[in-house]
Amino acid sequence: MNFSSKLIEQSVEAFASLPGIGRKTALRLTLHLVNKAPEVTELFTEAINKMRRNVQHCNICHNLSDEPTCTICADKRRDRSLICVVESIRDVMAIEDTSQYRGLYHVLGGLINPLEGVGPGELTIDSLLHRVSAGEIQEIILAISPTIEGDTTMFYITKKLKGSPVRVSSIARGVSFGGELEYADEVTLGRSIVARVPYKLGNE
Amino acid sequence: MNFSSKLIEQSVEAFASLPGIGRKTALRLTLHLVNKAPEVTELFTEAINKMRRNVQHCNICHNLSDEPTCTICADKRRDRSLICVVESIRDVMAIEDTSQYRGLYHVLGGLINPLEGVGPGELTIDSLLHRVSAGEIQEIILAISPTIEGDTTMFYITKKLKGSPVRVSSIARGVSFGGELEYADEVTLGRSIVARVPYKLGNE
Repeated sequence: MNFSSKLIEQSVEAFASLPGIGRKTALRLTLHLVNKAPEVTELFTEAINKMRRNVQHCNICHNLSDEPTCTICADKRRDRSLICVVESIRDVMAIEDTSQYRGLYHVLGGLINPLEGVGPGELTIDSLLHRVSAGEIQEIILAISPTIEGDTTMFYITKKLKGSPVRVSSIARGVSFGGELEYADEVTLGRSIVARVPYKLGNE
Repeated sequence: MNFSSKLIEQSVEAFASLPGIGRKTALRLTLHLVNKAPEVTELFTEAINKMRRNVQHCNICHNLSDEPTCTICADKRRDRSLICVVESIRDVMAIEDTSQYRGLYHVLGGLINPLEGVGPGELTIDSLLHRVSAGEIQEIILAISPTIEGDTTMFYITKKLKGSPVRVSSIARGVSFGGELEYADEVTLGRSIVARVPYKLGNE
């Protein structure tokens, strides 16, 4: 690309440094801002700067938060005996969007991945064990993807919790609700037969 | 989406206000910045703010520029008798990327579009006529898309230049180089037959 302006080039480079944004898209975004009032750009960058300066990790569950303790951990109406362990903040949001879960969370901040140098020490597993040792928690739900890294992480956490009185469960996996059998992948369909559950009538 | 942090929500809204960026992508970009050092965010927003505050339109061709006159207009080696008229800055960059053109440009800043309230007064057509009246220019090349708005704009400019000694040309249109005839659209193929040119041997 041939830029007649260094300023435009630097703005394009800035946008293109973000994941999934190429130089053509970066140029489109830059020209969009040029065509709007200068205040639009100021509000845009101000929101991002303010977020980056002030956002923090909750001192209990490590979710992103405006305060030292996040709104979920601070909410007295939530079930404090239940912790759902997830990989990232995005998983918290996905589960919150279902409105089906009223317990607390624990955000690991990643999965154990020796190839990329991520050991248990890089994650918030110690903090989870610390929460468990406080005694209030009765059940831990592992909501982690069943990849090699996810399985390793679940295995490690379960092993660390051996001997502790908390129950450890994992979210149900199988053919999705409304999903057609013929479109389900073989592993999911196969495992959903092995892990079959007793059929219940709706009014039971 | 259920945000546990207002700051994250505001950053997502800011990214999602850009064209072509949805809320899921906006969240991904926000979390990317959270996971990097705070300086990464500062450099990112600084580049955009600096660009928006300091970039200006060239006082000759209306291209975006760091100085009052852009590098193309200021370049003494370029052919000052030739002006290529384009819709936007993006077209200037596309033509510059070809390295085939050594004249000057004139950026209209849009096309005549009465339905969206864009009349000739909103574009830089008066400035183009002013440049022509200065006398140095011998040819004007219209490099404008042949849409309804493009055709209207080309018609308007050509009419305004009637009586002036400058030649008005339009870029060649036809089947692309290396393009297979069977994949060319009907309009392009049909017009390329009507607008056929004498065949020249390479060494002529």
